[in-house]
Amino acid sequence: MKPVIPSRGTLEPTVFAFDGGFWGERQELNRSAILPHAHEWIERVGCLDNFRGKPFRGPLFADSDVYKHFEGLAWETGRRPDATFEAWMEEIGALAAANQDADGYLNTRYRDARYSDLEWGHELYSYGHLIQAAVARLRTHGEDELTQVARRAADHVCRQFARDGVCGHPEIELALVELYRATGAERYLHTAKAFVDRRGGPALRDTPRGRAYFQDEQPLRAAKAFRGHAVRALYLACGAVDVAVETGDEELLAAIIAQWEHTIARRTYVTGGMGSRHSDEDFGEDFELPSDRAYSETCAGVASVMLCWRLLLATGEARFADQAERTLYNVVATSPAQDGRAFFYANPLHQRVPGEIPPTDRESPRAGTSTRAPWFTVSCCPTNIGRTLASLSGYLATSRDGTLQIHQYANGTIDDVRVTTDYPWAGAVTVQADRERTISLRVPAWARGATLNGEPVAPGSVTTRGREWRLDLPMTPRWTRPDPRVDAIRGCVAAERGPLVYCLESIDQQHDDLDGVRVDASAPPSEEMTAPGEFLFVSEDATLQFSPYHSWGNRGPSTMRVWTPHT
Amino acid sequence: MKPVIPSRGTLEPTVFAFDGGFWGERQELNRSAILPHAHEWIERVGCLDNFRGKPFRGPLFADSDVYKHFEGLAWETGRRPDATFEAWMEEIGALAAANQDADGYLNTRYRDARYSDLEWGHELYSYGHLIQAAVARLRTHGEDELTQVARRAADHVCRQFARDGVCGHPEIELALVELYRATGAERYLHTAKAFVDRRGGPALRDTPRGRAYFQDEQPLRAAKAFRGHAVRALYLACGAVDVAVETGDEELLAAIIAQWEHTIARRTYVTGGMGSRHSDEDFGEDFELPSDRAYSETCAGVASVMLCWRLLLATGEARFADQAERTLYNVVATSPAQDGRAFFYANPLHQRVPGEIPPTDRESPRAGTSTRAPWFTVSCCPTNIGRTLASLSGYLATSRDGTLQIHQYANGTIDDVRVTTDYPWAGAVTVQADRERTISLRVPAWARGATLNGEPVAPGSVTTRGREWRLDLPMTPRWTRPDPRVDAIRGCVAAERGPLVYCLESIDQQHDDLDGVRVDASAPPSEEMTAPGEFLFVSEDATLQFSPYHSWGNRGPSTMRVWTPHT
Repeated sequence: MKPVIPSRGTLEPTVFAFDGGFWGERQELNRSAILPHAHEWIERVGCLDNFRGKPFRGPLFADSDVYKHFEGLAWETGRRPDATFEAWMEEIGALAAANQDADGYLNTRYRDARYSDLEWGHELYSYGHLIQAAVARLRTHGEDELTQVARRAADHVCRQFARDGVCGHPEIELALVELYRATGAERYLHTAKAFVDRRGGPALRDTPRGRAYFQDEQPLRAAKAFRGHAVRALYLACGAVDVAVETGDEELLAAIIAQWEHTIARRTYVTGGMGSRHSDEDFGEDFELPSDRAYSETCAGVASVMLCWRLLLATGEARFADQAERTLYNVVATSPAQDGRAFFYANPLHQRVPGEIPPTDRESPRAGTSTRAPWFTVSCCPTNIGRTLASLSGYLATSRDGTLQIHQYANGTIDDVRVTTDYPWAGAVTVQADRERTISLRVPAWARGATLNGEPVAPGSVTTRGREWRLDLPMTPRWTRPDPRVDAIRGCVAAERGPLVYCLESIDQQHDDLDGVRVDASAPPSEEMTAPGEFLFVSEDATLQFSPYHSWGNRGPSTMRVWTPHT
Repeated sequence: MKPVIPSRGTLEPTVFAFDGGFWGERQELNRSAILPHAHEWIERVGCLDNFRGKPFRGPLFADSDVYKHFEGLAWETGRRPDATFEAWMEEIGALAAANQDADGYLNTRYRDARYSDLEWGHELYSYGHLIQAAVARLRTHGEDELTQVARRAADHVCRQFARDGVCGHPEIELALVELYRATGAERYLHTAKAFVDRRGGPALRDTPRGRAYFQDEQPLRAAKAFRGHAVRALYLACGAVDVAVETGDEELLAAIIAQWEHTIARRTYVTGGMGSRHSDEDFGEDFELPSDRAYSETCAGVASVMLCWRLLLATGEARFADQAERTLYNVVATSPAQDGRAFFYANPLHQRVPGEIPPTDRESPRAGTSTRAPWFTVSCCPTNIGRTLASLSGYLATSRDGTLQIHQYANGTIDDVRVTTDYPWAGAVTVQADRERTISLRVPAWARGATLNGEPVAPGSVTTRGREWRLDLPMTPRWTRPDPRVDAIRGCVAAERGPLVYCLESIDQQHDDLDGVRVDASAPPSEEMTAPGEFLFVSEDATLQFSPYHSWGNRGPSTMRVWTPHT
């Protein structure tokens, strides 16, 4: 469960084994519901039939959903074996092999029209997911038919794109670097670096969407922020960090960090969501962060976590873990339904009308409604959730020179270290080692007033030696005020508690219409619990019940708002 | 210049002849620049070549741009003859005739695939513009080749769609009613009524955009507001009012008025702009009115004026003229550049970054930037501006039973009545008749403190008998506060003066960055004029210059905002 293993950098990933709790339960849900549900749907909508020679169905990049699904299966079987999952992977591997040309080319949509449309064709993007799937398999099992297919495809890419060309949708870059890390073959790193460097030359044809859409209007090093299509921008940034780390390119790493800082300060929702525009699934301009029309795609949340993890490994700075935590709890955890069989694709922070219930027998439009849909006409998100939950154990802790760093808190174990907590519902975290050792614990930026073994500790990382630690993070609900330059939420506050963003959902209130709601933000929200994590706030004329944002929309159509005007 | 001549209703249109002034100058600009510019571009992008048998180019509805252009030429030559315009119309008429099938079918895109895609094909939409062009020609000239083509097409439509079918893009409805009015042939009215009644049955196939996109998810009478694609919704409403008036369908008229009220109160910008979403060019939900991502399409502004005019003729109520005025000055007048050779397609109320300058040698994307573009890949707006300015004389005044109603103020004459004014720059309007008569003058809703011949008059319509009138409308700049349920502009004010909405444009300010600007709204804006209509506002730390919104973006890339946070 280590999706990223840099050969250089500050921290080395280590695996956290969940024992129940918030993420452990979701990892089990992934195994029991999300992955089987995804398998059923990629079969149903034709993604697998595309490999069986049937007339092509689905979006141009339908192959990639199969590979992302394989990646989820690979990580999950690495965690705990499963014969059904093995059989699915075997079939996918055989189908992929049967469709691969002698020179390594593989795509069920383009076949004889290979690379005729680099801007939109997603062929390299699909290889990227094939390669990530192969890396997962290599690291949890070893070589199999699919890993061989992926290596041949990667070698083909290195030959085919030796001199020019990039993909309209970045993804191949980070995949090639990881394949280099998994195999040691330097050609993969060199090709990834070439893709990163070529971009913005420009390398693609202009289209009506403009080159910024696929990050090709200027060299990556020259950009001031993440821009254009959010998932494209974030996957590209991941690949650039990987290239920078492996080649020792400090300038490139610094450029991405500067862009990340700008983007977090001006182009990111309180949930961690990125990419505000429905049109072009684009970042939009600074401070263009509407709540109601927030796109905040689930895949952009996944990509943001991937990027934060890479930056954390490269620098060791707690702020990247802070942002990963915010995004995991408030975007990634928001997408899947409680039963694991429906998903949010977009993650708005304000639902103005109770939406229609999506159909259960066919794909839904991706822009979505107020309840989750089983599958989408463009269905990148469900398989992204599947592979992320299956590999989440690899995103929580690191080590370096014998010191263990725990960045995210969950109930479970890291090798011989036991973490006991009911986080994020409660703020107490106990860490026990079977011998004296040095451990670094992250104190989240929101945790003012935290204590470690009874002593006050400031946000950041605190490193101490011992055998048992007790970290207490204050879980008092708080009001968060927005940057005054964000027009859409001026005069509003958001309720937060620990790492969770809260919301008002109409089903919990006395009135359906949330447009007229006001809160008195002069005092902090009350802490009266009605269920774990749910609390009441009492205003002058109404009692308002705030619930965790990630859980909204699970009880039928409703209206909802994260930001509420204050009196 | 009477685009709408109801056979029933409250008021009868009459023609206002401009003598210079705000609209007179724009009508001349239309003649000297906009119409020739449009002709050049419909030739350049292939709209005319499509009629000459060349491979089809442009959007599915490219034919309609030719017809809208013809309509503008027809109205303009009715105002003042022009041999060049006549030659253009003659060529268009001949091209249309040459492409028409024996049974009346005419479309350069579909030809042998007729009506294979009613949802997207726009064939009936294109007939609608052909018919409107023909009506303009009939009313300013008489029969010619194009009017014959249009009649044959209309007859074909009546036969072809006798039993079922509607067009994905409404427009044919209002056109058929007007052709009925111009010719007396009742089959056109009956077919228009059938199209209005069938819609929402549903009458079209479902698509990923959903049926509300083309107003087919419920019967028009059942809707609570205008919804879906804004131009579609507004053209449909126009056609429905026309049908309701001609058939005496009071229930349908009342339904449209109720929808209009809801839409004005909850789904309309302060500029009069409608359709906030870029995605699907959609109305969006109530109070979903972002300033920065306002789509507010120019064509939706034109359509809103068309609808207001129909409702004014049907009811005589001043509120419809109020809304038409707001939309004419702040959407329709905003689109064309000062030189008449570039246009805004979208009309945002907040420009966050100085945009790129559009190319002059090719079409621009419609979503636009901070300066106007000469033509668009989908270029419905420029020809809509052309036909609207050419026929604008028909949208200002009416008569009934010997009483003249002046709804909009401009310098010029209505038959033997002379109106002298520098409106909208000054509020004094003098009306002189050559004999004693009864005249009704509109006092705009914003004009609190207006006087007529020195006596206070309240907003609404004031009807008096005499030979000379002096109306004084207060032109003091004022702050307008938003509905508190509109999240995007909470805590902001907009500067208005008379019928004009004002804005801050960065080029006029000490600082480029308008994100941090604040105004003290406790006192009204100062009236210090720097040019006609431009005034300064002095805040504590900076002098801010407000300019009319319609004039923004004429001096190169800049940032801009209509709504400004107040302290």
